[in-house]
Amino acid sequence: MKITGTFLDEISHDIPHQNWGRAEWDADFSHMKAIGIDSVYLIRSGHKRWITYPSQVLMKEQRAYQPPVDLVKMFLELADKHRMSFYFGLYDSGVYWHQGDYQKEVDINLKVIDEVWKKYGHFKSFKGWYLSQEISRKVGKIIDLYATLGKHCKDISGNLPTFISPFIDGTKAVYTFDNIESKPDSVTLDQHEKEWNEIFDGIKNVVDSVAFQDGHIEYDLLPGFFEVNKKLADKYGMKCWTNAETFDRDMPIRFLPIKFEKLRLKLEAARQAGFDKAITFEFSHFMSPQSAYLQAGHLYDRYKEYMKTLKP
Amino acid sequence: MKITGTFLDEISHDIPHQNWGRAEWDADFSHMKAIGIDSVYLIRSGHKRWITYPSQVLMKEQRAYQPPVDLVKMFLELADKHRMSFYFGLYDSGVYWHQGDYQKEVDINLKVIDEVWKKYGHFKSFKGWYLSQEISRKVGKIIDLYATLGKHCKDISGNLPTFISPFIDGTKAVYTFDNIESKPDSVTLDQHEKEWNEIFDGIKNVVDSVAFQDGHIEYDLLPGFFEVNKKLADKYGMKCWTNAETFDRDMPIRFLPIKFEKLRLKLEAARQAGFDKAITFEFSHFMSPQSAYLQAGHLYDRYKEYMKTLKP
Amino acid sequence: MKITGTFLDEISHDIPHQNWGRAEWDADFSHMKAIGIDSVYLIRSGHKRWITYPSQVLMKEQRAYQPPVDLVKMFLELADKHRMSFYFGLYDSGVYWHQGDYQKEVDINLKVIDEVWKKYGHFKSFKGWYLSQEISRKVGKIIDLYATLGKHCKDISGNLPTFISPFIDGTKAVYTFDNIESKPDSVTLDQHEKEWNEIFDGIKNVVDSVAFQDGHIEYDLLPGFFEVNKKLADKYGMKCWTNAETFDRDMPIRFLPIKFEKLRLKLEAARQAGFDKAITFEFSHFMSPQSAYLQAGHLYDRYKEYMKTLKP
Repeated sequence: MKITGTFLDEISHDIPHQNWGRAEWDADFSHMKAIGIDSVYLIRSGHKRWITYPSQVLMKEQRAYQPPVDLVKMFLELADKHRMSFYFGLYDSGVYWHQGDYQKEVDINLKVIDEVWKKYGHFKSFKGWYLSQEISRKVGKIIDLYATLGKHCKDISGNLPTFISPFIDGTKAVYTFDNIESKPDSVTLDQHEKEWNEIFDGIKNVVDSVAFQDGHIEYDLLPGFFEVNKKLADKYGMKCWTNAETFDRDMPIRFLPIKFEKLRLKLEAARQAGFDKAITFEFSHFMSPQSAYLQAGHLYDRYKEYMKTLKP
Repeated sequence: MKITGTFLDEISHDIPHQNWGRAEWDADFSHMKAIGIDSVYLIRSGHKRWITYPSQVLMKEQRAYQPPVDLVKMFLELADKHRMSFYFGLYDSGVYWHQGDYQKEVDINLKVIDEVWKKYGHFKSFKGWYLSQEISRKVGKIIDLYATLGKHCKDISGNLPTFISPFIDGTKAVYTFDNIESKPDSVTLDQHEKEWNEIFDGIKNVVDSVAFQDGHIEYDLLPGFFEVNKKLADKYGMKCWTNAETFDRDMPIRFLPIKFEKLRLKLEAARQAGFDKAITFEFSHFMSPQSAYLQAGHLYDRYKEYMKTLKP
Repeated sequence: MKITGTFLDEISHDIPHQNWGRAEWDADFSHMKAIGIDSVYLIRSGHKRWITYPSQVLMKEQRAYQPPVDLVKMFLELADKHRMSFYFGLYDSGVYWHQGDYQKEVDINLKVIDEVWKKYGHFKSFKGWYLSQEISRKVGKIIDLYATLGKHCKDISGNLPTFISPFIDGTKAVYTFDNIESKPDSVTLDQHEKEWNEIFDGIKNVVDSVAFQDGHIEYDLLPGFFEVNKKLADKYGMKCWTNAETFDRDMPIRFLPIKFEKLRLKLEAARQAGFDKAITFEFSHFMSPQSAYLQAGHLYDRYKEYMKTLKP
């Protein structure tokens, strides 16, 4: 199961920044290409008051800080240069929908989508949209949110593909800042299937792919959840991807690169479940030869060795 | 707003040690000079039983451990060599004043000051004193402590300058070991002004500069607090510096280098408030090209690019 | 006090993996040799479902995951190559004995010992056994566990040596994931002596050496505890080693390399107590020039300087 896409973690609220400039990003896209990654997904275009491009909408309406660099433009130029696909991740207010106001989250994003398509839609590498609100359960009006935003993304852009990347409400779905290893309660497989059946049904026409994060459940539960996810995706005509996390959720340091053995185990489970594609969160911190975490470069090497063992 | 000084974090209780020898420190002073840092401030000469120089006073009276190297001597020699200014940070018992006994903290430090001036006062680079007890509020007899120690430093050394580096009691003023993102209560701007007005009034003749740490409040509160700090410093004839923290307080890993965007935002706020000078805590872990945290080297590069955009 | 042995931390539940391949391990054994380390100790051969070699016993009976590499074989081959001694660390179920079922922990390990000796006993570098269950107090049937497993290790292998590496139940014996600096209660020296007197008495014939971890008590308590440990070891004819931890337990990041000054202080205490040998947990993350933690390489350099000051 080859990893062919990666998120770009610009605006993070829990992963320290690497302070890369254009030269480092350019090199990183080369490193990605070298192992077969052809798509990059901006994890979000903004979070609270931090934004990735000089958005008039967000600076005015969300009092966002003027960013020092236009990262969206830079990523698109680099994606053009390296012949990669770029997906734009929507804005996450970090407030509205978390507090139950899904409509406000939708409203600001409709403007962001308009602004972004106008500013950057002409780039050859602009190939799709990522609906960045991350959920694990059928919360509030999330179906409406995905449906409205997904539809607008597709309508404005000539039907470019959209995707979401939820997580499973497993024992490891704990808040990063809470120093606990795991929580006692977690979703059952049945309940997971029931809720996601409803969600998929509500978004099937406007969300093309779903890429569940693979890090919140114990390793031996992966096959069961993967099977359900694939079955549901097939049922509603969506593509089933895996978001193979390349950081380790099991360690007291949150977060450093994952042990290769764990990544391999997760990728193998996705392969056996017949998934369509594997992407990762994320290459540049956790898998790149130039990451500040030197374990990442070794993971890159181990992954390359693993690729050689895969059938073409 | 250029950074022209940095703390030297030898004796840290919460930042892991880099285990540098003289060669690495020598190189680091060169890296500092290359971006315009001309002053180094020893964060403290000792903490509890760990000390930076073989102090007879502290080994005898505080049962301090004999240090393997005389760091004070080394730093002074390197400062001489690189034509930089060195400020000596006083001893922090970690106990006495924390438990309300300010007099004991004063007494041991009076002896440390005597000892240090005798041992190292002849160094050309010995240019001032840092009163290392860090506060955010008008606690206990802190005014007396600063006043007594500041006066003695100046009396013994021919009036060399002194400074303090307090923090603001904002939502991010949480204990490093407590894994919480922020605390619900924080000081109001009015209360901050009231308390610091009293403190400055009590220390104005013996403390030359105040360098508030800039990391404990939300970014949008910086202008308000900076304005008050500058106003108060002006009122009492003190210099107003900013201590621009180069580590990121917003992340679950405590601590790694800050995102450049955040540092720039803080420096810009200090510039707009008309501050006299910017220093940082601290260069060697969080901004140095040879730091164990490779993000620091990239921060160094981003900062150099930023410097080029500043008016001379 | 020279460090002449190190654990190999393959299967860790709290220290992030470096993702090294054979080339990196080969180089690391060279780095070890260069400072006088002649013995490596596998910290455990498996933990829960993660294992270091393709054990039929553990895959069948513990549903262990098939490992991507046979690390035991690789370590033995490298130990042969570098003329070092290898000690095999037993399996830790992470469950049975933690929940009071010592017999199940013994039973599975008896099979592991048989399997391992048959598979790897012919390697020249296979020189002993490490009983990997870590304790600080006389809990449950731990004496029986050590006695039974130690005896079987020795019986099957022609009396190869065995050792244990307990910790002291000091203020720093806190759970890694609990973000607290220290716990209020800790064992008294008298109680420690009483319990370990009983344990040593019960295992004296089948455990050759004891290497207490040196990181769980305050530095000024080391001489007292070391004296008791040495006295007890002498009384029962066991060798007394120190397990000099090269990571720093005092920091909010758990864990990065220790400050050299602290390591030196601990080694000097062991020397003064007349210990037979110093080993460390562990070289590859915390002391190696190729560690992902660059502080480790500087610790290596500082340690080499220290070695030069030691009498031959």
